[in-house]
Amino acid sequence: MTAQSPERPMSPPEPPYYAVVFTSTRTPGDNGYTERAERMFQLAHEQPGFLGVDTARGAAGLRITVSYWRDEESIAAWRDQAEHAETRADGRHHWYESFAVHVAKVERAYQFTRP
Amino acid sequence: MTAQSPERPMSPPEPPYYAVVFTSTRTPGDNGYTERAERMFQLAHEQPGFLGVDTARGAAGLRITVSYWRDEESIAAWRDQAEHAETRADGRHHWYESFAVHVAKVERAYQFTRP
Repeated sequence: MTAQSPERPMSPPEPPYYAVVFTSTRTPGDNGYTERAERMFQLAHEQPGFLGVDTARGAAGLRITVSYWRDEESIAAWRDQAEHAETRADGRHHWYESFAVHVAKVERAYQFTRP
Repeated sequence: MTAQSPERPMSPPEPPYYAVVFTSTRTPGDNGYTERAERMFQLAHEQPGFLGVDTARGAAGLRITVSYWRDEESIAAWRDQAEHAETRADGRHHWYESFAVHVAKVERAYQFTRP
């Protein structure tokens, strides 16, 4: 399990479910970010209500990570998970130049796979 | 105006608003994709209710594009825009190996900018 998304987008589950869109730019250097990010992906996968995650970092430095959750309760539990909360504080102190978070309820979804 | 996101995430407007998460992998080659993608970004910016867009393409080939809209009506109008509808059909025929679309109502949002 790694922070690298697989070659295909996550298959959408049956709505409703939640998407947390996390868009960020980083400070220069790694500063322990990569190891901690891997750990957060691992932890998220173990959380109740976690449905999946897609992530991509563009050439201009913008990273977009979208995690999917069963309901608001599972998002709240992940927010309050102690190691995750500590890591978010480290993110503000060390790793992120800027970020935005959008918490959204998915109302409909569809997918396409080339035949 | 380009398909390249700027160096900072879009600043979230006041919720509620909508996010359309489009996650995709491409077929090999460009096949006219880049030019058409630029045109779609340009067209989207001209649509009523368009609030902004962030996009990133990862090393493994996964692209995530999140566009933000005032309401469902503006998403429907963009879906029905003739040139966009034609481009979506071209996408299924030529450019995309797979994609997923999640249409979601943003309930809360916040941002951080390093002081």
